[in-house]
Amino acid sequence: MKLASLPQGRDGRLIVVSDDLAWYADADHIVPTLQGLLDEWDRYFPLVEALSIELAHEAIPRKRFHEREACAPLPRAYQWVDGSAYVNHVELVRKARGAELPDSFWTDPLMYQGGSDDLRGGREPLVLADEAWGCDFEAEIVVVTGDVPQGATAEQALRHIRLVGLVNDVSLRNLIPSELGKGFGFVQSKPASHLSPVFVTPGALGDAWQGGKLARTLCVDLNGKPFGRIEAGEECTFDFGVLIAHLAKTRKLGAGSIVGSGTVSNRGADGSPGKPVADGGRGYACIAEQRMVEAIAAGEAATPFLKWGDSLRIEMRDAKGKSIFGAIEQSVVKG
Amino acid sequence: MKLASLPQGRDGRLIVVSDDLAWYADADHIVPTLQGLLDEWDRYFPLVEALSIELAHEAIPRKRFHEREACAPLPRAYQWVDGSAYVNHVELVRKARGAELPDSFWTDPLMYQGGSDDLRGGREPLVLADEAWGCDFEAEIVVVTGDVPQGATAEQALRHIRLVGLVNDVSLRNLIPSELGKGFGFVQSKPASHLSPVFVTPGALGDAWQGGKLARTLCVDLNGKPFGRIEAGEECTFDFGVLIAHLAKTRKLGAGSIVGSGTVSNRGADGSPGKPVADGGRGYACIAEQRMVEAIAAGEAATPFLKWGDSLRIEMRDAKGKSIFGAIEQSVVKG
Repeated sequence: MKLASLPQGRDGRLIVVSDDLAWYADADHIVPTLQGLLDEWDRYFPLVEALSIELAHEAIPRKRFHEREACAPLPRAYQWVDGSAYVNHVELVRKARGAELPDSFWTDPLMYQGGSDDLRGGREPLVLADEAWGCDFEAEIVVVTGDVPQGATAEQALRHIRLVGLVNDVSLRNLIPSELGKGFGFVQSKPASHLSPVFVTPGALGDAWQGGKLARTLCVDLNGKPFGRIEAGEECTFDFGVLIAHLAKTRKLGAGSIVGSGTVSNRGADGSPGKPVADGGRGYACIAEQRMVEAIAAGEAATPFLKWGDSLRIEMRDAKGKSIFGAIEQSVVKG
Repeated sequence: MKLASLPQGRDGRLIVVSDDLAWYADADHIVPTLQGLLDEWDRYFPLVEALSIELAHEAIPRKRFHEREACAPLPRAYQWVDGSAYVNHVELVRKARGAELPDSFWTDPLMYQGGSDDLRGGREPLVLADEAWGCDFEAEIVVVTGDVPQGATAEQALRHIRLVGLVNDVSLRNLIPSELGKGFGFVQSKPASHLSPVFVTPGALGDAWQGGKLARTLCVDLNGKPFGRIEAGEECTFDFGVLIAHLAKTRKLGAGSIVGSGTVSNRGADGSPGKPVADGGRGYACIAEQRMVEAIAAGEAATPFLKWGDSLRIEMRDAKGKSIFGAIEQSVVKG
């Protein structure tokens, strides 16, 4: 089943979307919002799923779905925590800051608590007040949980995943070093994130969903050119079960918690940090990694961080080439 | 005006509470929840305030208010960010970890993004799975904001403060060093926080609310004995306007964002880290500070972190000795 929200009030209104993202049916007569569905999943899921099946069978009136009309599936959430499942990314961005990668990062997930009061749609512009902040995108997988009890194991945690989607976890690279230097994580350096237009139940992902990993290619384009074609199912050191269990060690998680994979990242076939797409590699899901690879190869980074007017596209396609979650497609605007 | 929530569903139901905390009137016929009031403050505030005045005049049916029956005013929130306004606290806990205090900490607020999906009531037990985690309380002031635009100045930010309250920001001290060592802030080491039974509008605080600081004594008792009698209006380096403006530099804040002061802390009259209450000082609002002072004086800390069966009380009284927010009064239980 695929779900989205159309703009209404602070939380949007729930719709079910057809598998090909071409059609939708209103679901807000069953439960007004996606958060409401997550709050009472066992009660409403069967009803919303039945609606979704009727939509697929064209048994009910249907309307044209346009990704550009959707807001974030959850325009605000009670929790957003981001992991670092792709250790290659962590290694590269730390190298850029002159920091070593501790061995423990391969066994003990690195996670941070992010702001969730303002989550934006995949087609909303990326609003940037100051280019000097060094704005970067980070293309990631996210899951949305139901209630997760404290102390859940990784295996148990997997069963609490309700939905899967994509996120652009925007980072202000030039604000990060001094903020991380203070030791308490990100506050100013992580502005609002943008979510994919559509979130999908794990069951509807078929073979692509493999034990808490999403085995499809994450496609990132910058200014109309391929920037990353990264295999999200490869080199994913921590599956979502492990990330959720890490988070739930000392506290329970409320329904609607969003957990991120961290920036998806692959090494090169030779074990190196890989190559840009333009050089025949798989490329990257954030600018910082490409800049680091450039600095290693040529002594200095060449690709600038995002500027006003830049455009960005983040998408994942199924085996038939159809968009799974819709595209995060946005331009960077001053504001 | 004083507001609280009684248990109902995931978000409680809104009530107005009399100034002396003895009586309440249901407000959920006006707007069901405190979050709902914060979402549409301009629309509902005049109606809820009118109800509060009728309650004060005994012009409507009133019911007995018992702090123990209230849940957290906001049982979950879209944002919880904690500051470190009392730099004496930061200096002491860093000393305990063997870390120096950078000079910038006196001018650049230290803040962290916390979990807000599970906020507990002031009379709910403090549930602790493992005493070896080194559980500590941190008694703090919090404010709840309305919508705050990105780039708000400190002065503008003050006008967006809707409510003031207290929090026990529970910390697991023995998990903090390794987690902060990873550089991304707190995840496992900050379990659910507990909020005071009642939140109060700044206007109802009278002279105690002074330019974004709360000038009253924060009273902390541990196992029935005074542990801290700290002046929250003194040595507060960053008022709430400064903390909110820091947070809003790169992003807007959604209505219902909770911002904390960090652990309230005073130096001694001689500029030293102060003395425990038992030694004639003002004491502390967390165990870690007292342990550090003990370690400096005697070579090792004597006060243990919280154990199952310990009891805790955090309260603030007005000039007439009446409790302003009700008391956070809880015992530590295994679970």
